Amino acid sequence: MDILNIRTGRREEMLSITRQLQELVADNGFDEGLLVVHCPHTSACLTINENADESVVADILAALRTLVPRSGPYRHAEGNSDAHIKTSLFGPSLTLIVSGGKLQLGTWQGVFFCEFDGPRSRRLWAQWLGTIENDAARG
Amino acid sequence: MDILNIRTGRREEMLSITRQLQELVADNGFDEGLLVVHCPHTSACLTINENADESVVADILAALRTLVPRSGPYRHAEGNSDAHIKTSLFGPSLTLIVSGGKLQLGTWQGVFFCEFDGPRSRRLWAQWLGTIENDAARG
Amino acid sequence: MDILNIRTGRREEMLSITRQLQELVADNGFDEGLLVVHCPHTSACLTINENADESVVADILAALRTLVPRSGPYRHAEGNSDAHIKTSLFGPSLTLIVSGGKLQLGTWQGVFFCEFDGPRSRRLWAQWLGTIENDAARG
Repeated sequence: MDILNIRTGRREEMLSITRQLQELVADNGFDEGLLVVHCPHTSACLTINENADESVVADILAALRTLVPRSGPYRHAEGNSDAHIKTSLFGPSLTLIVSGGKLQLGTWQGVFFCEFDGPRSRRLWAQWLGTIENDAARG
Repeated sequence: MDILNIRTGRREEMLSITRQLQELVADNGFDEGLLVVHCPHTSACLTINENADESVVADILAALRTLVPRSGPYRHAEGNSDAHIKTSLFGPSLTLIVSGGKLQLGTWQGVFFCEFDGPRSRRLWAQWLGTIENDAARG
Repeated sequence: MDILNIRTGRREEMLSITRQLQELVADNGFDEGLLVVHCPHTSACLTINENADESVVADILAALRTLVPRSGPYRHAEGNSDAHIKTSLFGPSLTLIVSGGKLQLGTWQGVFFCEFDGPRSRRLWAQWLGTIENDAARG
């Protein structure tokens, strides 16, 4: 299992981690298989969306703020219930395809770390599982 | 990695791709392992839900339209911010269990391609990872 | 593929299944790889969120009730359209990292079975896929 470090700068933020993941694949010689990236936090998570126009990310964060307001009739006393709820809506992990030695993403897709209760130092865990041929090459 | 082609016919649509995936499993002799299906688009995605009564799919699409209106104070100029937001809510991929040579789905479950900005020609990517015994049989 | 049995006690409930999954990993000697847990139902699903303060779970269920009301202009005649919609929002399965013989979860993370149309007897399916070394040890 590999560990990636993330530093967020605002309460809510979607940080592209596409390049970090591409480097992880290249540096380890991952060729053919699956890369699972897991966010071990409960007020931050992962998603894939458009990487080209930054306004898409702004629209996503704004929509989430409308759907799940920061203030509400919440019981949890830490003031970050909205962050927990958003985290479950997007999900804690991504299972990414690696093929031909490359992370397979669509033309417009980027992988984003979604911070909902920052700024904080965060971590991501990555587990690689390759086909037999690829695993054997690493053995 | 396998590629599936999808043709959507409306702006918003949930198309069952269960049979296509079952055929992929059968045609390749996948026996025991995981099939990851990834949608490389950012205004369409995948989900699993009831396959029997078509009104369930209609209710899901209507609920999403209520939660994420097509028109709103969006910054993204392409007029499809709602589609991007819905895509992140449902997620870009599914990790499906294959066991005993069959895609494992519950009695009422079907796999759906969710089009939110069609009609378009779309693609899906599928990556198979089997247990050693199964991979070896294919080697 | 392993099967876990779940008994829910209310219409809406988030039941921690963290311990059951940890036992599954330990009892089978799973060491290094991925554990996919799939919910074969269409009105229940899985998520990961905070396991420490029970008010987080209460806030999540309450937020979902606000986002997707039980009564609405639904077409599906069974009265559980809200449960189907919530299921697609959270997703049908989780892909969990197992490393060093342990299920890898963050300090505050627990795995929850989300019942949206109970009480019912439910099932979960678990598929293990290990690295070559680990699979071979089981062979």
